[in-house]
Amino acid sequence: MLPHTTLSLDWLYFLQMQHLTTNPNILYFQSGGPTSAINASFLGLVETYRSLGLKGHVYVSRYGVSGLLNGELEEIDLDNPPDITYRPGSYFGSLRLKLEDNPNGEQALAIIDTLKKYHIDFIFPNGGNDSMDTALKLSSLVAHHDLSTKVVGIPKTIDNDLFGCDHTPGFGTAAKYVINATVSVALDDLTYQQGRVNIIETMGRDSGFLAASSKLACLRGVGPDYIYVPEVPFEAESFLPKCKKTYLEKGRCLVVVSEGIRDKQGNLIASSSSKDQFGHHQVGGVSSYLAGLLQQEGLKSRAIELSVLNRASSFLPSNQDIQEAKEVAGEALKAALEGKSACMVCLKRVNDSPYEVSYEAVDIKEIANRVVYLPRKYINEAGDNILDSYIPYCLPLIQGNAVPLGEDGILG
Amino acid sequence: MLPHTTLSLDWLYFLQMQHLTTNPNILYFQSGGPTSAINASFLGLVETYRSLGLKGHVYVSRYGVSGLLNGELEEIDLDNPPDITYRPGSYFGSLRLKLEDNPNGEQALAIIDTLKKYHIDFIFPNGGNDSMDTALKLSSLVAHHDLSTKVVGIPKTIDNDLFGCDHTPGFGTAAKYVINATVSVALDDLTYQQGRVNIIETMGRDSGFLAASSKLACLRGVGPDYIYVPEVPFEAESFLPKCKKTYLEKGRCLVVVSEGIRDKQGNLIASSSSKDQFGHHQVGGVSSYLAGLLQQEGLKSRAIELSVLNRASSFLPSNQDIQEAKEVAGEALKAALEGKSACMVCLKRVNDSPYEVSYEAVDIKEIANRVVYLPRKYINEAGDNILDSYIPYCLPLIQGNAVPLGEDGILG
Repeated sequence: MLPHTTLSLDWLYFLQMQHLTTNPNILYFQSGGPTSAINASFLGLVETYRSLGLKGHVYVSRYGVSGLLNGELEEIDLDNPPDITYRPGSYFGSLRLKLEDNPNGEQALAIIDTLKKYHIDFIFPNGGNDSMDTALKLSSLVAHHDLSTKVVGIPKTIDNDLFGCDHTPGFGTAAKYVINATVSVALDDLTYQQGRVNIIETMGRDSGFLAASSKLACLRGVGPDYIYVPEVPFEAESFLPKCKKTYLEKGRCLVVVSEGIRDKQGNLIASSSSKDQFGHHQVGGVSSYLAGLLQQEGLKSRAIELSVLNRASSFLPSNQDIQEAKEVAGEALKAALEGKSACMVCLKRVNDSPYEVSYEAVDIKEIANRVVYLPRKYINEAGDNILDSYIPYCLPLIQGNAVPLGEDGILG
Repeated sequence: MLPHTTLSLDWLYFLQMQHLTTNPNILYFQSGGPTSAINASFLGLVETYRSLGLKGHVYVSRYGVSGLLNGELEEIDLDNPPDITYRPGSYFGSLRLKLEDNPNGEQALAIIDTLKKYHIDFIFPNGGNDSMDTALKLSSLVAHHDLSTKVVGIPKTIDNDLFGCDHTPGFGTAAKYVINATVSVALDDLTYQQGRVNIIETMGRDSGFLAASSKLACLRGVGPDYIYVPEVPFEAESFLPKCKKTYLEKGRCLVVVSEGIRDKQGNLIASSSSKDQFGHHQVGGVSSYLAGLLQQEGLKSRAIELSVLNRASSFLPSNQDIQEAKEVAGEALKAALEGKSACMVCLKRVNDSPYEVSYEAVDIKEIANRVVYLPRKYINEAGDNILDSYIPYCLPLIQGNAVPLGEDGILG
């Protein structure tokens, strides 16, 4: 097997000799929640397709599998792909839909019809762990119906919680926003001798990577006093006196909290009662809840929920993240060309400094519906802050500054 | 009078011939709420002081007038001013304190002592309309005590509500964040066929300039469906059906609302009961309140409060804003050198396109404690959106992209 990391004509010749598909029709779709890097992955796929000189058709299913289900795919003009490198949101639309299991059901047959209609050789679902459930079902489905279609997942999620991945495209840009927002809030608060308890709420439904990133504000001398992640049960009883003590000692207190923190019983500290199709509660609002508790104790407190800007902060990109999002999609195409299927291409870290990654296909069964948590080794013993050892992990992922704004000062 | 806009040795010679102070000891302090451009004003003052070859001392009063009150000023090393061009927060600290009126009271006498101790010739308060109340009192005070100290205000406020100013330093960067956040939220929402009612809450206690800025998202095709500003009484009764109609028609609805919107009786739609020393309610939280109303009506809704990041978004600066913040401070120094006092230097617009400004000293009595509102001509008849005519006003103020991040991807 030739290595993934370089393109070469020798390698294409090798594929031809193996009678593997060299002019594939490919299908790409976006799934799950958006990130600031997901559209870069689409462009990486197209760029690699072109650079390999492949002569098939590139299709997109709009709104996740919707196009697959209703038989309407959209062909991409390879000479004029949309200019969406830094565009927030999933440009081609997404859908949170759990596919039915029945390989002969209505959904399954509609999908098979579409794949046959467009002669699709490779499918590239671009998504997170829920989306890889969809990818897994698609790969079972094509096998059941004796199609040779390959399914290779392209990772994305700001939560950074995919099995097999050192980190995931989308996380770097989201982490960069968390860090810079934390620095900004901290410096703003220093304006007054008597500050506040500022509670910054990051995204991160199950895993604490994003909240943990705020630790890097310490590189500017303003690291949070407390960081709470979903991996450690949250105790309001100890939270209140801790904040009060810090506030009284320092005249201020900086707390960063993941939206997904839970109590000892595993209940979310704050959430709405509604669930999505994958059974996940809609989260958000815990910072307001905690600020309210502190205000009842007479502490000046403010909740700052990063909310949807946490995943849509394309105006402050990590170019490392954007480049990796492109590369991993190119590697997914090459994996499919090599005959791989039912896998996702993951980023593996070769080295922290100088930072180096490699790409590796991982069995999709290992990834689908599985959450990776922030390792305990990064969390302090008290469970209320992040250790310095997290910095060399996170710092390379936010590198590379860019101005994605137009000349008029507006994104895009 | 020689023009303000160019420095020249002739001009200094002119000042000497008029027996005006040519080697002044100057005092600078920051007052009121922080902006992302206030520290640039300090640097502009220092740069102009140096470029004019002035030979006195430059002092700072930390935490607003605190240094003046306790007799402790800090001298700035002019060869090594702090590197704070893009630093959020007021680097030298601020204080919300309304000075007593009595020119022979304890506060007044302490201030006079400090001015004499350090032989202060010029005072430069850097602040908004409340801070110009302080500036006004200082200028009365020195006159009462027969000091020749000049007081020249340097404007700053993200609210853009100072009399005599076409716009204020700090507004451009804050507006740029509002616009880019609006674009990002809008594009993120397009991910799903069935979107939400997103309610973005900007700062702006009394005036709607910041919320109005979101209009410029229309330059990317994603202008808000509704924009609510404090200048128009807010009616929940019409808000709900409007949102519902748009949501049902478009599958989504984008609302931008100023934190300071009020009902017909002038009561804030959402605020805490506490007031500051200037009698202003602490505001914020109206987006959550409105999102709650919509959720009760069964509409999927989300509140996105820009909160303190609205004024601390130094990671996304308007370089036009930063440059003007520097220039206006330099002009304040030149006004004082010319013998002016009890004034603030304001930015006047000469032309929209090509954009051009001039600087003009305005009597501080006109500015102190006075709020300028978003002109009605920019608001549509229904009072629920902003007209296109606002675009040429706002667009020049967000120009000039820059990367204020360090090589490690973090601000500063």
